[in-house]
Parts: sequence; C-alpha cells; structure tokens
Amino acid sequence: MKKQIVIIGGGFAGVALAKRLAKNKTFQITLVDKNNYNFFPPLLYQVATGFLEVGNISYPFRKLFQRWPNVYFRMGELKRIDPKNKQVELSTGRLDYDELILATGTESNYFGNDNVQKNAVPMKTIEDALTMRNTLLLAMEKATITRDEKERRKLLTIVIAGGGPTGVEVAGMLAEMGKFILEKEYPQLSKHEVQLYLVDGASSLLSPMSTKSQNYSLETLRKMGVRVKLNKMVKDYTEDTVQFVDGETIETKLLFWTAGVTSKVFDGIPEESYGRGRRLLVNAFNQVEGLEHIYAIGDTALMRADPAWPQGHPQLAQPAIQQGRNLARNLENSLHGRALRPFTYRDRGSMAIIGRSKAVADLPKPKMFIKGFVAWIMWLFVHLFSLIHYRNRITTMYNWTIAYFTRDQALRMIIRPKSEKLDTDL
Amino acid sequence: MKKQIVIIGGGFAGVALAKRLAKNKTFQITLVDKNNYNFFPPLLYQVATGFLEVGNISYPFRKLFQRWPNVYFRMGELKRIDPKNKQVELSTGRLDYDELILATGTESNYFGNDNVQKNAVPMKTIEDALTMRNTLLLAMEKATITRDEKERRKLLTIVIAGGGPTGVEVAGMLAEMGKFILEKEYPQLSKHEVQLYLVDGASSLLSPMSTKSQNYSLETLRKMGVRVKLNKMVKDYTEDTVQFVDGETIETKLLFWTAGVTSKVFDGIPEESYGRGRRLLVNAFNQVEGLEHIYAIGDTALMRADPAWPQGHPQLAQPAIQQGRNLARNLENSLHGRALRPFTYRDRGSMAIIGRSKAVADLPKPKMFIKGFVAWIMWLFVHLFSLIHYRNRITTMYNWTIAYFTRDQALRMIIRPKSEKLDTDL
Repeated sequence: MKKQIVIIGGGFAGVALAKRLAKNKTFQITLVDKNNYNFFPPLLYQVATGFLEVGNISYPFRKLFQRWPNVYFRMGELKRIDPKNKQVELSTGRLDYDELILATGTESNYFGNDNVQKNAVPMKTIEDALTMRNTLLLAMEKATITRDEKERRKLLTIVIAGGGPTGVEVAGMLAEMGKFILEKEYPQLSKHEVQLYLVDGASSLLSPMSTKSQNYSLETLRKMGVRVKLNKMVKDYTEDTVQFVDGETIETKLLFWTAGVTSKVFDGIPEESYGRGRRLLVNAFNQVEGLEHIYAIGDTALMRADPAWPQGHPQLAQPAIQQGRNLARNLENSLHGRALRPFTYRDRGSMAIIGRSKAVADLPKPKMFIKGFVAWIMWLFVHLFSLIHYRNRITTMYNWTIAYFTRDQALRMIIRPKSEKLDTDL
Repeated sequence: MKKQIVIIGGGFAGVALAKRLAKNKTFQITLVDKNNYNFFPPLLYQVATGFLEVGNISYPFRKLFQRWPNVYFRMGELKRIDPKNKQVELSTGRLDYDELILATGTESNYFGNDNVQKNAVPMKTIEDALTMRNTLLLAMEKATITRDEKERRKLLTIVIAGGGPTGVEVAGMLAEMGKFILEKEYPQLSKHEVQLYLVDGASSLLSPMSTKSQNYSLETLRKMGVRVKLNKMVKDYTEDTVQFVDGETIETKLLFWTAGVTSKVFDGIPEESYGRGRRLLVNAFNQVEGLEHIYAIGDTALMRADPAWPQGHPQLAQPAIQQGRNLARNLENSLHGRALRPFTYRDRGSMAIIGRSKAVADLPKPKMFIKGFVAWIMWLFVHLFSLIHYRNRITTMYNWTIAYFTRDQALRMIIRPKSEKLDTDL
C-alpha cells in the first residue's frame, strides 16, 4: 500500500514538495488547489498593468505533473480537517491521508474593514490582477467621456495602500505608464493629470529591507512623480473617499490594496495551533504543534525554532521552496527510519523593482546593497530564471524586451467577466 | 470645420475604413466599439481550446490608433440612431456625425430558442472563447471527481452544433486534444471515452465551399473519431439533453453553438432597410437604402448590386476589409466632387483547417482545390500574415511552433470571472 500524501495548496511550497517527493514511487501524492493552475505571484503586478499575459506567469497543474504518474491533481477547496480519522473534506469530496501538508499561503488582510474589502482592489490572485487591469482601463475610458470635472478627478486619482514590494512595484509601473502611454493614447486627457499616491502606515517603504533600499525607493518614486505618504493608516473607504486615521482624506474611485496578508483558519485545527497573523505554529520539521501527521509549509507556517529567525521566516518564495524541499527529504527519512533534519533557512537576499533601470537588492553574504541599473538587471535575471517553466521564460523575455525598447505594451484589453455555462460546485 | 465620421464597430470592416481614412486630415474619425480592443475572429477557436492567448489575437484600439491624432476611440454601445439630427446615442453619451458607418458585424443566432441561448456556449467573442475554455476544463475536472457514471458520460460528451469553418475547426482541435492530451493529463479518465459530435442541419459540412472540400473535411473528421451527423436540426436543449427535430437525442452537459449568425436591429433604422438575416440593404457604394449619410459595411451589409454576387457577399473577412477600403476611397471622392466607385468583390478563395497537417482551400483563379499538408501550410501563412500587428504575429508563430512539436499547449488555465470594482455604465 502506497503512503497517501495530501498537499493542500499548489504555490511555491506545495509544488516544491510535490516535485521532490514525486521521484519516490512509494508515495501516492494528491495536490489539491482551488485553481487548476500554479502561478508566480512576484510578477502579478505586471499582469495587472498589462505588461505580461496570464499565460506568462501561470501553468496548469496537470501539465506540470504529466511526467509523474504518482502525483494526482484534485481541484477543490479545503473545508474541514478531521485529524482523528485522517481525512479532509473538500468542496469536491473527501480524501484520506497518511500525511497532510497545509501549504495554503495567505490572503489579503483588510483588518476587519468591510468597506475596504468591498470597494478596494486587492492583489493576491490572477483574478485580482485582471480585476485591477480592467478597473484601471475602465476608469481611463470613463475619464475621457465624463463631463463632470469632479468625477474625472476621482477617476484619475489612484491610491495604492501598502508600501511593500507589490505596492512599490505597482506605483512605479503606473508612474511610467502615465508618462509614456497616457499622452499618446488618451489625447482627450492631455490637459489633466493622473495623481498617484502610495501610502503606508509604517515610517518607511519596504519595511523588511535595508535602510539604504528604503531610502533609494522613496527618493526614486518621488522623482517619478509618485506622492508617497508614510505613517498614514487607512481608516475607511466609502463614497469614493479614502479616510486616514489622522483625519486626512483623498477622493478617488481607485483604491488598490496591498497593505497586508493573513493566513486562513481551518475547521478542525485547534485554536492553540495558530500564532501571529493566524500562521500555524510548527516545529523545526514543519509539524503543526499539537497535531500528528499534519504539517504546514510556506507563508502559512510560523517556525520559531530556526535560531536566526526567532520571529519566524519572512513570507517569501525562498523560505517556502526550501521548507517544501526539506519536508520532502524528511518524509523520505522517516520512511527509512532515518533521523529528521531540522529546517534552516538559507537567506538569498531580497529585491524590489521600482521602474525601468531602477531596482534595489539587499544581499546577505557578503552583506551588500545594490541599486539602479545593476540591481534591475539582477532582478530581471532572478525572476526570469525563477519562472518554473521553459515556455514561460521565453515569451516573458520576449514581452519584456519589447516593453523595454518600445516603453509600451499591448495587453490593455478589457476582458469583461462572464460565468461559465456549467452547473458546478468546483 | 473637419468632417465628422463616426464608425460603429471595430472589426475587419471598421478598422480597414478608419486606417485608410486616417491619412486624410480633413476627416475627424471616431471609432465606437463596446470593447476597447480589436480581435481576430478566425482564430477565436484556438483561444477556446487553449492554444493561443487572448493577446495573440487582440489589440487595444487606442494603441492601434496611437499614430493618428485624427482618430478618436470611444467605448460604448450603439443605442439609437437619429438620422434627422445626424446624431447617435451610445450607452456612454451622444455623438454628432456628418457620415455614419455601421460596421457592427453579426451575433450568434439561436433561431428564437431560449433554452439553447441560455445553456449552450456560443463562439463569437473573446468572452465566448474564454467561457468555452473554462466550461471544457471544468467539465473535465468534474468528470475526474464524480462517482455518478451517467453524470460522467454527460460531462465527456461534447456536441458542436454548426458545420461551418468554426464548427469544423473546434471539432478537429478537440479530437486531437482528446487523443494527445487526455490520456497524459487525466489518468483517472483513461478507461472512459470522450464522445465528440458535430451536427449540422444541412446535408454537408462547410456549405459554401466546394464539394471536394466538403467531402475531404467529412472523411477526415470521421477518421479522427468525430461523429458527424448531417441533416440534423437542433430543436431544443434542456435537462442536459440535445433534442433534434427528427426525435433523436444526445445527453450532454456541453453544447457548443456555431450554428448561425444574425445582424443587429438598430433603433432609428426603418423596417424596409433590412434584408435577409437582418442585414442592412446597401447600394453599390454601401449606402443604406432609404437613408442619407448612413452606410453599412462588412457582415451587416447586404449588397446585391455586385453582378457576381446577386445574393450578397459571403460574411467573411475579405469582403469586409475590401468594403471598408472602398468606402474610404468614396468618402474622399465625394469630398473632392469626384465620381463614386461601385464596390466589386475580389474573391481570394476560402479555406478551413481541420487538424494538424489537415486543411482545405478553394482558390478562385485558377479554380483549384488544395487539401492536406499544403493547404495546412497555406492556412498558417494566410492567418499569420492577416494578424494586423507585428507583435501578435511573432508570439503566435512561437505558440504554434511549440504546439506543433509538442502536440500540446500550456494555456489550460481556468480563470474564473469576477466583476471589476467600479460602478460604470461602460
């Protein structure tokens, strides 16, 4: 009888685990995801701004696992875990497991504000990115048509909440689009100005990065025309008005929300297994505290056993991939009665792109700060080679080359949603 | 004062007209479309089957007209024409015109059957193609999960209604996907069979083509495993059952509708200006009969003055493009008091693709029938070079090359719809 491994979530962590385990035929692996495709979150903002196509950053799971007959894909959402009977209930049925791995990542955190959740556009999924693209483009069309000056001002004001990498990247991209594309394509708007705000509750952008990176990003964005406001917490968003805690307001129809993430709560996991940000507390082997045969990896796991990271690892691709691989090794180790290997994170640094020829990178060993064109080239290479699939890389490189030389891209289609014609609970 | 030219619809005809007129600075051209992009309908079925991306076959109007400051784009839908006051009412406001050109194409014709309209998936727009892709992929996922044998059979039965080029192309593509992709990616379905029907009310496929083309297509599709049923009219589609006029039924959850098109009816155009299929009756200069300063070009125009085509021109790209260009010339002619040039269609033949290395082409001069690999290569070149934009061509060629060598494509992502977060009447 094969060992049944059920992985919930096919992001960086889940896919790294599945691919490493697949080589061992004693495992029967089922990867569960609510989408039928894996995607590359670091480049979502390029889909949102029309620089890349969905297909450049996503890949169907079934194609990904074609070569491995012992990996099954199952579309569905996790509803409940039954640790006693070692069973999970999905939106599409039940599955028995010998070992269960939760690799469910995070979702947008609105900090309990229903108005923001309802009216702002988040940036966590492919659908979010397409919604942002449509919303932006429709706002521009509407701005060319309206005769109400106040309405037009609200349509041409964009507020990005959250000064992390995504917020910085979206702000930089929109600032460049405003400069190079707006005048060429929207002649009716030539005498009007797009106002672009980037706001964050903290006192700096890119909080986990070095002070040099933070300062360079701030200066660069300001030079590009972005109105950066720090120490600014969003309190509410109603009637086209963003209200801040300090009483200030900005009138806009476009609030983009990249201000925070939170993990999911699972029915069947006891209260005491959750830590800060609802992340699941795990030991050095990614086992969820207080439960047997259940593991958590990636953004949703909070491991405090790694000496260099007593507050847990950053919620980035690298810790997720490394945890997935280490867990694969440990599942094999325990199969052969070998000792388990505690996880230690090898920090490869972090980077953010601000615009054309403008990026920052903090490298850990040797400790170094790199900025500008060199950091930008590094960013391009790291991201190009992180795209899992050869196909994606070539078309992405092609799209980027075109964008570089023309300062323009052609993916600004508003594709309006329509539901599929199939009664389905998938 | 510039002459105000308003073009409703940015398909082959409308874009050909706008591009030709744009060079003349005495015209102020406004192109109106309900989408913000032009697209290439002959390749829609490749988007529907996951072989091409939306960006390969579509292009934003604003980018298309970047170089011509006297062409405006206006997003909106035509609501009403007021020929007396020379004004059109759009969903997004009013426009005055000196000359109005209707280039609105056709829409799916359900022949009055509401059940078919509600439950079948059509194939006329980009959204239709994405709906077809999602519906197909969701049906496959559901088929792997269900334990109800009857339900699974209905999910693995596909009925394509309409044996024109689109129906033939979709059938051929799905037959090949079933052969090369299904077994590799859906191991759970390996012992089940996909049943693929292509049905048409006429006694042959590809009715306007030569008998040789019709016979070759029929034989080829049958060899590929497609169950072709001719002289079969769909009567109704309810409770997962396609009912035919002759009493036969097929149980399926997937009815794809390519069985007919019809033109739109416009508020403000008198009853007597419409001909067969609601097409607008036009004279040899594409002027709508009984109206002044209003023209119709492309699929929606019915011209019986062209001696070789007493029943009107076929609803294809070539007549649309040629009419658009001829009308541009005539609008200039009338500006300079020169005689108008009646339209004559130069037939360049017609072709259809059935599958890998399998296509048919009827050439008019010299009259020739070409089939198989040679016709397939011709089809690829004609379609590649008809894609208006250089960018699209390169990525499309790349996508096709990959598809040819791998017999596979990677665009099988189910992107679920979600509405944009902007209150808008666009």
